[in-house]
Amino acid sequence: MNIIDIIEKKKLGKEHSKEEINYIIDSLINNTVADYQISAWLMAVYFQGMTENETTYLTDALIQSGDIINLQDITSQVIDIHSIGGVGDKLTITLIPLMVAAGVPMIKLLGSGIGYTGGTIDKLKSIPGFNTNLAIPDIINQLRNIKFAISTNIHNIAPANKSLQAIKYTTSIMDSIPLITASVMSKKIATGAGNIIIDVKYGSGASLQTTEDAEKLARLMINVGKNFNKTITTIITSMDEPLGRAVGNAIEVIEAIEFLKGNIKTGDLAELSYEFAATALVTLKRYENIEQAKEYLKYLVDSGKAIETFKDIIKKQKGNPKVIDSYDLFDLPQYRYRCRCNQNGFINRIDGYKIAYACKLLGAVRIKNNDEIDRSVGIFLNKKTGEEVKEGDTLFTIYANKNEDIELVKKYCYDAYNITEENNYNKELVYKVIRGNENV
Amino acid sequence: MNIIDIIEKKKLGKEHSKEEINYIIDSLINNTVADYQISAWLMAVYFQGMTENETTYLTDALIQSGDIINLQDITSQVIDIHSIGGVGDKLTITLIPLMVAAGVPMIKLLGSGIGYTGGTIDKLKSIPGFNTNLAIPDIINQLRNIKFAISTNIHNIAPANKSLQAIKYTTSIMDSIPLITASVMSKKIATGAGNIIIDVKYGSGASLQTTEDAEKLARLMINVGKNFNKTITTIITSMDEPLGRAVGNAIEVIEAIEFLKGNIKTGDLAELSYEFAATALVTLKRYENIEQAKEYLKYLVDSGKAIETFKDIIKKQKGNPKVIDSYDLFDLPQYRYRCRCNQNGFINRIDGYKIAYACKLLGAVRIKNNDEIDRSVGIFLNKKTGEEVKEGDTLFTIYANKNEDIELVKKYCYDAYNITEENNYNKELVYKVIRGNENV
Repeated sequence: MNIIDIIEKKKLGKEHSKEEINYIIDSLINNTVADYQISAWLMAVYFQGMTENETTYLTDALIQSGDIINLQDITSQVIDIHSIGGVGDKLTITLIPLMVAAGVPMIKLLGSGIGYTGGTIDKLKSIPGFNTNLAIPDIINQLRNIKFAISTNIHNIAPANKSLQAIKYTTSIMDSIPLITASVMSKKIATGAGNIIIDVKYGSGASLQTTEDAEKLARLMINVGKNFNKTITTIITSMDEPLGRAVGNAIEVIEAIEFLKGNIKTGDLAELSYEFAATALVTLKRYENIEQAKEYLKYLVDSGKAIETFKDIIKKQKGNPKVIDSYDLFDLPQYRYRCRCNQNGFINRIDGYKIAYACKLLGAVRIKNNDEIDRSVGIFLNKKTGEEVKEGDTLFTIYANKNEDIELVKKYCYDAYNITEENNYNKELVYKVIRGNENV
Repeated sequence: MNIIDIIEKKKLGKEHSKEEINYIIDSLINNTVADYQISAWLMAVYFQGMTENETTYLTDALIQSGDIINLQDITSQVIDIHSIGGVGDKLTITLIPLMVAAGVPMIKLLGSGIGYTGGTIDKLKSIPGFNTNLAIPDIINQLRNIKFAISTNIHNIAPANKSLQAIKYTTSIMDSIPLITASVMSKKIATGAGNIIIDVKYGSGASLQTTEDAEKLARLMINVGKNFNKTITTIITSMDEPLGRAVGNAIEVIEAIEFLKGNIKTGDLAELSYEFAATALVTLKRYENIEQAKEYLKYLVDSGKAIETFKDIIKKQKGNPKVIDSYDLFDLPQYRYRCRCNQNGFINRIDGYKIAYACKLLGAVRIKNNDEIDRSVGIFLNKKTGEEVKEGDTLFTIYANKNEDIELVKKYCYDAYNITEENNYNKELVYKVIRGNENV
């Protein structure tokens, strides 16, 4: 077996055997293939695809490349909720307190963000003192005793996946359905939970652009998960604009806190937070239908239990819980630019990619692995799609620490907004929920 | 401009600008992109192709990456004949003496062979003392005075092409028509001749498998050549079996000498040698038609002028001209295995790839850049396609220096032969000649 023949085989659209997939990943780990051979193979996979079998083999090879967390007798009770990622995505931060308040053990291992969409770990690190380094036995104990475990993915979980991701990011191969599946499923399966809820996003802010592709991804994930005895539930959601109003790090955490306090009752962030948490409760058979589960979750927020749980989580993770009540304990930016609208109309669309690019210019996201980021900066979207706007209204606010590129940042933000005279907006936030424990 | 966006653009099938192509090649030369980004881009080009404009930009960028030989006032007289390469291809060795004997200045810069098909330079080095290192002024002087210049491609000709080729070889991207075009044309155009004859091979021993692909390649080369004011003539030939009977190094030179002595009058090697040399003479308007040109070339062989010219060439390149008359001055192998046929019938096909693989096992070809090769070993095909064979006849002869793998070598050679009861063979050796100075 040699890598050149394997690349040729995929180039011609043939199916790999388990041995061939193992050979690729073993060679990657042992440095017996060059990265440029791996990237050529990945690009061939992008064009020729992979079958469910090949994707399962790749997932397994990635899992076997590192540690596997065995949650033992609690496996079937534990939930893991994964977002594919998107601009302004702070769902993990709203969901952990909701699930924990509902008494569901939730595990969440996180990586640092690379690329435009940022990473949850970087957002959580805006909370002074917040520590996310837990050893595997601590993770299992914490799940048993206090029902949650949040940690950076430092535990050698699917390390071969990290190597592949690094190549994929820098060669623009982020939108291959089988490669996304193997990457997400390997991390989630090795993390140990028996029930995995996966947010599959589509639209301009996400890797996949169409509902058709998102649905393909969802079904492939469910089927691959079944091969590992995991119950996968996928929620396909649109990502045509950033999620919520805040895009950055500290300002995203503040928005999540506002939701948990009950101050944000409508809009995409509230809607999706309830949808995901309710889906988890139904998956675990805690409620028979989504509406009942949502009622219960709203009670957790309105009664103050949700925000108290987040305070408690922050405390247990050695962070300063006072940030909940005093936002000035977060790093604050030097400048705020309120940018006003120069026409009347309705927001028809906000291009997440352009907003993300503006955030990159501000220094809020990491482009290379060890880049330093500025957690205080970001963009706040005062107006979101479907909302009416009048000339002179604040459209968005830029939180910045440097002045140089500010005109370019403004330009990207203004360009991101598409404003029309009529209100054409009719957004279906949740496109479809596909449950792995039903027939797919 | 950045490489990730450029890869994405090609992945989506869009056309690159001249600036983008220059950015890729400049970054490659300056090491500001990773090889794995280049290989991902190359694989995307394999799948999405390139237009004539993109191919011309790439050719130009590769030319500009190194030295360019300016043949000044003799440019339009000088001919360069290039073979795309194939198993047993020793045409360069028969053509140089023919052209020089006919008084046509011929330039030939050669690289070392990598991969299955071997390199002409390795074959010529079987001649004891043969030196192929000439400086650029020497090349130009020699063309003026003694009508030929053979040299290894050590003159920094299109160095970026070498980097791309190294990646392409090890990632199985050898069959992309625009990439082959840019690679061949950049070397040929930088080498300076005004008239370039290109042997485009198709079939199991070549990179391209079909006449359709070969014709596409030929037309793209002609059109790209026109953009650089070069007259390109392409000869599309089949490569369904090795060329001639000898496959190796020394034994291929001996076969070329036998042809030049007039001892091989029929078969593919003789036919193609006359076809190519005659096409060159017609391209240069030395003869009006191919048949007249061939008559003259046959006279050069039969009168002994061709072999005398080769002797003279060897002498001027500091080689030992006595090899012409005493083949035992070549390195000789330790073992010869005559392998007999076990059935009656006709040779229907000989798989060049399998013969090449057998030669690789013997040590006759280089797999990595600095591999040592054994110039004495090889395979002699006692029977070629279309010939009758009887049980007990020698089918092929193995020239070897080691014993270990010999059963595997035999197996590959036997497997390469396809023998049928009836004679189905009806080979059209030259599929088509397409001339760049006519309408294409």
